[in-house]
Amino acid sequence: MALIVQKYGGSSVADAESIKRVAKRIVDTRRAGHDVVVAVSAMGDTTDELLDLAAEVAPIPAPREMDMLLSSGERISMALLAMAIHSMGFEARSYTGPQAGMRTDDKYGSARIVEVNPKRVREALDEGAIVIVAGFQGLNDDTQDITTLGRGGSDTTAVALAAALKADVCEIYSDVDGIFTADPRVIPKARKLDHVSSEEMLELAANGAKVLYIRAVEYARRHGVLIHARSSFSAAEGTYVLGRGMLNPRESEGEVMEEPIVAGVATDLSQAKITIIGVPDVPGKAAEIFQIVAKSGANVDMIVQNVSAAATGRTDISFTLPKADASAALKALAGEQADIGFESLVHDDQIGKLSVVGAGMRTHSGVSAKLFEALSIAGVNIEMISTSEIRISVVLRGDELADAARAVHTAYGLDNEIEATVHAGTGR
Amino acid sequence: MALIVQKYGGSSVADAESIKRVAKRIVDTRRAGHDVVVAVSAMGDTTDELLDLAAEVAPIPAPREMDMLLSSGERISMALLAMAIHSMGFEARSYTGPQAGMRTDDKYGSARIVEVNPKRVREALDEGAIVIVAGFQGLNDDTQDITTLGRGGSDTTAVALAAALKADVCEIYSDVDGIFTADPRVIPKARKLDHVSSEEMLELAANGAKVLYIRAVEYARRHGVLIHARSSFSAAEGTYVLGRGMLNPRESEGEVMEEPIVAGVATDLSQAKITIIGVPDVPGKAAEIFQIVAKSGANVDMIVQNVSAAATGRTDISFTLPKADASAALKALAGEQADIGFESLVHDDQIGKLSVVGAGMRTHSGVSAKLFEALSIAGVNIEMISTSEIRISVVLRGDELADAARAVHTAYGLDNEIEATVHAGTGR
Repeated sequence: MALIVQKYGGSSVADAESIKRVAKRIVDTRRAGHDVVVAVSAMGDTTDELLDLAAEVAPIPAPREMDMLLSSGERISMALLAMAIHSMGFEARSYTGPQAGMRTDDKYGSARIVEVNPKRVREALDEGAIVIVAGFQGLNDDTQDITTLGRGGSDTTAVALAAALKADVCEIYSDVDGIFTADPRVIPKARKLDHVSSEEMLELAANGAKVLYIRAVEYARRHGVLIHARSSFSAAEGTYVLGRGMLNPRESEGEVMEEPIVAGVATDLSQAKITIIGVPDVPGKAAEIFQIVAKSGANVDMIVQNVSAAATGRTDISFTLPKADASAALKALAGEQADIGFESLVHDDQIGKLSVVGAGMRTHSGVSAKLFEALSIAGVNIEMISTSEIRISVVLRGDELADAARAVHTAYGLDNEIEATVHAGTGR
Repeated sequence: MALIVQKYGGSSVADAESIKRVAKRIVDTRRAGHDVVVAVSAMGDTTDELLDLAAEVAPIPAPREMDMLLSSGERISMALLAMAIHSMGFEARSYTGPQAGMRTDDKYGSARIVEVNPKRVREALDEGAIVIVAGFQGLNDDTQDITTLGRGGSDTTAVALAAALKADVCEIYSDVDGIFTADPRVIPKARKLDHVSSEEMLELAANGAKVLYIRAVEYARRHGVLIHARSSFSAAEGTYVLGRGMLNPRESEGEVMEEPIVAGVATDLSQAKITIIGVPDVPGKAAEIFQIVAKSGANVDMIVQNVSAAATGRTDISFTLPKADASAALKALAGEQADIGFESLVHDDQIGKLSVVGAGMRTHSGVSAKLFEALSIAGVNIEMISTSEIRISVVLRGDELADAARAVHTAYGLDNEIEATVHAGTGR
């Protein structure tokens, strides 16, 4: 008998029918002899509807009240889910984030978990009940007010509960079958991975993969939680995200070498590039520039500085950032043009980013050479390069991204024989 | 500076516009220099929508989960209301029932308040904030689970907070202007009362007046809370419901005799009549019958037993009860026909009840004679009569009720010179 934490997102509990389907799935797990704790999101578009209402009522809603408002969505879904389970003859109890012992700091809208004390959850499990916990929410430890955990907060709730309860596995259900070697909508021959290391998952998530939220993966990695990302529409196994100390076949040098070195190819069309032309090539300029950009609230990703032209003593600096952050960053930089002393700014929102991620890169050479070769054969020009220990990213023209990704996917031997079928629910 | 508790019902906060209107009203009260605590219901039809969802998910929803579900509606309205006030430049804080210290017993769906400890409410008031409290909900003191207070629960929340905080007045806002001498939809010449005693209010509410809930009035009477029932659509004063020890002009014998002796004429078409024919006229039969009826869950109102016919040693017993309870009561009685020994059952759902209520009845004679005289002139036949210290009720044919009420209203001198205008919102 295992202790299993399951997380169901908003699209899995969008209406009464879906809730009954999820309830059945939970009951099946219980019937198989396991203890079950479920973290659940608000139904379908509830959160968006509440956000709309708030916008109608107040131009800048008070953050404390916003969290009080948004946290009501999960109370609805969790109570309905508990009722549905109850009516199948199983004892089920729902708990709000505060009741489940999720203590957070006071950052309304994106609170960090400071402590998880699932006393009531444990008691309910001991009494044989299935426990349903509201995802996405906690209690401000200082003021006893409701907080929310921000985007992907229900994933974080599930992983944090799994860690605190020392669960055997944390199953994150969504409408896709697991983690793929690439986005199946871009590369139909993408293959589902049986396992991926949490480091790889972090790089994939940070570079465009949408299935799991970085924060939940990071929490799982730090607390040694085994995540199983799988589909609520199928009984098939999904992808296990291996925590610290769990064997990743792609990192082993020996016999188990059926796994390719590379875990996947991530693609991202959400970034823009800003180039600052004619920056005086003197010490401290880059620091000055990126302090200004950071202050504008922009989240800088890749940075490339050209070699200085000796004749002018000036250089160009390019960086990428989310498209949504670009105008604020441009405005901030333009306001400091005289101080920084650059010549002009160029904004480019037609870029695409391609990343190859694999823990095996640590021990296998030639991984990047293969990438550049594949892109060269495909006739794709590389504009920027950035690397980490287990990732290589390149910036390309956005309209060449899909072709480039297919070529690279094939070059690394990741192609599946059969093309993936994309579920109706995908993309929700 | 006074401390004012205000209660706004679901139709007063049905959408963003209504919420902003209510927020303005609250802010105006604060601007006038008063401390304000607000109890708010769920928006418009939220509770009904949640009930529908629950019915879709589970045929007999678990009561604990039902209360968790239903209590989410007030969290939405209270957070939106607090935001709206905040955006008008005033400090506002919302609290759930549990946070506001509403402790109840464990009767999910119709919990009784056992203690109110509004510590956080007081602190927020001391810090100058307007306080918004979720109506209709509390915390099961034993298990720390959410409870709801049942129908009219938000009125009870407001009155209980007013009592605990020793507020100067508890303003109950609705879409009608106050308590009338009769239902303005039945009698357009009905007059708004400036004040009514809580005893009168209890009799009016129990006999068909819908503006205030009996339970809230009873709580106010016991704890000496002054209720002011008024319209959220108008700035006009409504009706004060006077608590114990507050002077009711209709009871004073002296100079202030402009008020009529009678507070109002209540009408009620929601009852049915059951007559049990040929009951053996032996001691204990009535007790036997009404134990059976009570067990069926029916709420018996009036009871009349005919004089026994000496020849047969049998009598007829009639009683009224809510139409919705009639079939269960009939079934229960039919099942015990042999034991009780009656001859037959007659069910009549075409009755109407007319009640005349007035504290002045205690000290003024001739009140009931005037009623019977008015009905006689109007040609209306009386089928049953029941009286309390400050009320006379008669059962008539339902289709004669409106005419009878108009005649009685005129006879007691209650008619207004001008006919009341019924607000668009009335009846919601």
